[in-house]
Amino acid sequence: MMKYISLLGATGSIGIQTLDVIRLHPHQFSLYAMAFGKNIDKALPLIQEFKPSLVVVQDEDTKKKLQQEIDHTQILCGGEGLIEASVADPVDVVVNAVMGSVGLPATLKAIQAKKQIAIANKETLVTAGHLVMAEAKKHNVALLPVDSEHSAIFQALNGEQRKDIHKLIITASGGSFRDKTREELIGVTVDDALNHPNWSMGAKITIDSASMMNKGLEVIEAHWLFDVPYEQIHVILHRESVIHSMVEFVDRNVIAQLGTPDMKVPIQYALTYPGRKDLSITQHLDLEEVATLNFQKMDMERFPCLRMAFEAGKEGGSMPAVLNAANEEAVQQFLEGKISFLDIEKYIELALEKHDKIHNPDLSTIISIDEETRRNVRFQIN
Amino acid sequence: MMKYISLLGATGSIGIQTLDVIRLHPHQFSLYAMAFGKNIDKALPLIQEFKPSLVVVQDEDTKKKLQQEIDHTQILCGGEGLIEASVADPVDVVVNAVMGSVGLPATLKAIQAKKQIAIANKETLVTAGHLVMAEAKKHNVALLPVDSEHSAIFQALNGEQRKDIHKLIITASGGSFRDKTREELIGVTVDDALNHPNWSMGAKITIDSASMMNKGLEVIEAHWLFDVPYEQIHVILHRESVIHSMVEFVDRNVIAQLGTPDMKVPIQYALTYPGRKDLSITQHLDLEEVATLNFQKMDMERFPCLRMAFEAGKEGGSMPAVLNAANEEAVQQFLEGKISFLDIEKYIELALEKHDKIHNPDLSTIISIDEETRRNVRFQIN
Repeated sequence: MMKYISLLGATGSIGIQTLDVIRLHPHQFSLYAMAFGKNIDKALPLIQEFKPSLVVVQDEDTKKKLQQEIDHTQILCGGEGLIEASVADPVDVVVNAVMGSVGLPATLKAIQAKKQIAIANKETLVTAGHLVMAEAKKHNVALLPVDSEHSAIFQALNGEQRKDIHKLIITASGGSFRDKTREELIGVTVDDALNHPNWSMGAKITIDSASMMNKGLEVIEAHWLFDVPYEQIHVILHRESVIHSMVEFVDRNVIAQLGTPDMKVPIQYALTYPGRKDLSITQHLDLEEVATLNFQKMDMERFPCLRMAFEAGKEGGSMPAVLNAANEEAVQQFLEGKISFLDIEKYIELALEKHDKIHNPDLSTIISIDEETRRNVRFQIN
Repeated sequence: MMKYISLLGATGSIGIQTLDVIRLHPHQFSLYAMAFGKNIDKALPLIQEFKPSLVVVQDEDTKKKLQQEIDHTQILCGGEGLIEASVADPVDVVVNAVMGSVGLPATLKAIQAKKQIAIANKETLVTAGHLVMAEAKKHNVALLPVDSEHSAIFQALNGEQRKDIHKLIITASGGSFRDKTREELIGVTVDDALNHPNWSMGAKITIDSASMMNKGLEVIEAHWLFDVPYEQIHVILHRESVIHSMVEFVDRNVIAQLGTPDMKVPIQYALTYPGRKDLSITQHLDLEEVATLNFQKMDMERFPCLRMAFEAGKEGGSMPAVLNAANEEAVQQFLEGKISFLDIEKYIELALEKHDKIHNPDLSTIISIDEETRRNVRFQIN
């Protein structure tokens, strides 16, 4: 049976790889809608190839430019466009791979419309996990993780019961700076940070890997996705990124998912779940070639972003939204060369300290906290 | 709900550990029947502790001696006793942990009586996999593996479909002689062979680990249990025995089970399946302490027993029964000091060469091939 897919964030790293998977299975998957920001050059050949019925762009200006290039395709823009792409009747699965908190309202609407959600947008669960999971439960909608770590845990939990979980063990490669001391981090450049040892990803997530904030956001995501308290979530350093994460059950059995570092694997699993399909474009894992897997204790002093994420997660309420917004803004400023790598954690800490926690924030509160936090970080930097 | 257990092979290594698990969960598990050979000294305190309704011993002589020690307990003996313990009305699960092919008829009867079977007796599937699996299918009975490797695969397949399996990856520690060359194997003693680096097990299986025949028998078992052709079963050397085995699916996802080397884990899983229960007497796996996992290609020239097992499995028919019987007899002769360690593989190879394959052998044919093969091996040695 054909699955109709709405892809939010089509020109990003996850979006492009989602299209690779769709291209591989033309009889199973069809792209109904795609959303992107402003990159018409990248989007146009994809629109011509996949012929979606609906295209969503960031603003009116981009819409006008795109209209000159394509006919016979509905073009919408902004948040309303994202929502339309998420709730349109033919859509079976919404792949939410947009950057930042702009994906949140669309996800909530998609859940209300009882769509399956393949979730690659971390902010959705980090900032509004309590709202998203409550809606998912209410409408009995499956949230399918696209992150390799959460896909690993999701697969390890296949056929299992929540009550039998002893702990989640999330692996971390350590990112581009794993072998540097804190002293050595003082002078690192943007180019150094973008050179991830195992995974090829977008700039924001590569910086987050270097600071270990990516792992911190994953911990918060895992807390919401799998309904597991922070005390039962453990992060372990695993340089090779071969084991993508694990679940230990109460009977001491540990179930792990292993694979090559290829995002197409978790992307396709989210699209084929509960089934599986051949993925010929991806290499088989060859453990004889890998030869050695290493594991080390995660040092929370070396990686304060991970410590802050655990703390913000445990505090709950609006704190994870502040953590996420401050991080997004600080990383942006780092990428623009305005602050140093170690400044990222400094501005996040400052933002968390200054914020008065709001319990159980609603969507509009989360959005205004997000904007306010970014504004404050920018103000402090400039 | 109380599960009533019939334990065949109660005084062996698996039997004792099964009783450890039953002891841990007095409100979930009750020992209805137990069978053992002749070791009354070992069995008596267990009978007094667990108070089974039925006890089965190997022969009339042992039965008479035991009757002098216990009242109010039914005592049966021999193969008929094993069958009665397997089919008795109150029994929910039969744990088949007897040594050798004596467990086979009891397993078939237990399946016909629609009992759940926790299978720790390798010979049952190695020699008569075609009969056992046909009966299990006919009566819709679950065969629950107790071997750590098969339990790992069974758990990795939880919630999955047979058609999505790309291959099974069975790990092998390499046994007590893994670091020796074939030349260095010439002078090894029984004591050397019994010193397994990772697992504490019975003598026969420890010798089989050193010769890699244990892995060969596991490959044949896995073929039957999971209905996977030999071409899709791969063995990999993994010194640490932390990953107990894996399944690679068609979409490149590899699911593995990891744990400490403690047989109580797979034993309990077979008893609690499809649920899980706390297993407080077993250590948690600590990957930070383990630190490194190693993987190497398995050398079929270094370990000819594994090669012969693959070949006998692929040939099928009566060949695996010959492999198994020749191995059992040769290992016995090695343990008694009558042949050298390298002679084991020599006598197995000879037995396989001399045997004319019988297609699809029935139970009585398997039993007579078993006896004939042992007789031939003894004859050649003496």
